[in-house]
Amino acid sequence: MRLLFDEEQEKLHIRFSEMGMMVSEAIHKSVSAFINHDKELAHEVIVGDYKINEREMKLEKQTLEMIALYQPVTSDLRDIVTVLKAISDLERMGDHAVSIARSTIRVKGNPRVREIEDEIGIMGDHARKMVEEVLTAYIKKDAEKARKVAKSDLEIDQYFTTIYDQCIHEMKTNPETVVGSADYLMVATYLERIGDYVTNVCEWIVYLKNGRITELNPGKSELEKENE
Amino acid sequence: MRLLFDEEQEKLHIRFSEMGMMVSEAIHKSVSAFINHDKELAHEVIVGDYKINEREMKLEKQTLEMIALYQPVTSDLRDIVTVLKAISDLERMGDHAVSIARSTIRVKGNPRVREIEDEIGIMGDHARKMVEEVLTAYIKKDAEKARKVAKSDLEIDQYFTTIYDQCIHEMKTNPETVVGSADYLMVATYLERIGDYVTNVCEWIVYLKNGRITELNPGKSELEKENE
Repeated sequence: MRLLFDEEQEKLHIRFSEMGMMVSEAIHKSVSAFINHDKELAHEVIVGDYKINEREMKLEKQTLEMIALYQPVTSDLRDIVTVLKAISDLERMGDHAVSIARSTIRVKGNPRVREIEDEIGIMGDHARKMVEEVLTAYIKKDAEKARKVAKSDLEIDQYFTTIYDQCIHEMKTNPETVVGSADYLMVATYLERIGDYVTNVCEWIVYLKNGRITELNPGKSELEKENE
Repeated sequence: MRLLFDEEQEKLHIRFSEMGMMVSEAIHKSVSAFINHDKELAHEVIVGDYKINEREMKLEKQTLEMIALYQPVTSDLRDIVTVLKAISDLERMGDHAVSIARSTIRVKGNPRVREIEDEIGIMGDHARKMVEEVLTAYIKKDAEKARKVAKSDLEIDQYFTTIYDQCIHEMKTNPETVVGSADYLMVATYLERIGDYVTNVCEWIVYLKNGRITELNPGKSELEKENE
């Protein structure tokens, strides 16, 4: 029984990590598509999302079966619960990649602002890096690394503030960029939200390690703090 | 043992429903604060959010302890897993209420557009109603109702499209409303996302009832569909 459980658990880890890589790729592709106005690549992200959803459902099923069948306790149970919770966060990151891809397709020849697109590219790279690092933290069960990754979400919030300011400036001074800038703003919101989901996964890795449920970043952006 | 489990389960249901009501109230207050420019009420939502987070953490702990202690199977296990998963969705709805409240505080005497604020008020009411209906569906374990609630998320998406169009029009024609309209757009995004979270909870209620994990709305807004 123990041997079977170990095997199942190993499979679970691999499938979860694979799901994470699928999400990381979706984010990368959607941001590339957006800043390069590449509708074909955007379409690829949209039609490929079902694979991420399918993987989530399979993992959900597997975790529930493992709990029912092996009735794991302590660290074994934590291990499975971490996957059960974190797959929702991964899946939603995938949804946000799709939203970014849809923005790419929606934009039809509106005037663009290169400067803001560059900043979105950098923010996208950072978000993707966060996803990959949280996967490494998961594989190594490294709670310290998870805390560090969560902290780097504050940088994402700073990118958001920069892009927000740029968009407002642009919309005020060049009304013809309003549609495009509104899209930039929304894409920045999606990326910022991806950072929040990564932080959630970080929290589950800390739990995995020590069994304590901890809120890592009661994260708020500089923009949000401004007027409190 | 069974008696103890039943008692614990009953407590879990009550605490989960209470958490839902806390979230519903936070949404209502944050939208009221936003459209009435009531910074005090907004502040109340922000400082009150820790109660929702605290409740989530307690429920998380309770579910995990119940799984470890009673090793429930079939419908008992599903019951607990539903709470374990759905509390994350509730907690994130609360986060979005906070984001709306922060928007209220951020806005400092920018020109506002009454027409858009009215539409946001209606969208907010709809979002709140969805939260309350999903709680009823949960209490009654009514999968049919859950499906119906999920369907009503499409209306939220329509409100979003309307507000998006209004904002773009406003920003193009009255540059002095850019900051305010960007906020409207973001608040509409938060409410739209709340609808998505309600849909997730609906999916867990369907699972609770029949043990099958089902995706209810591969929901996309009219706006998003436009150019595919």
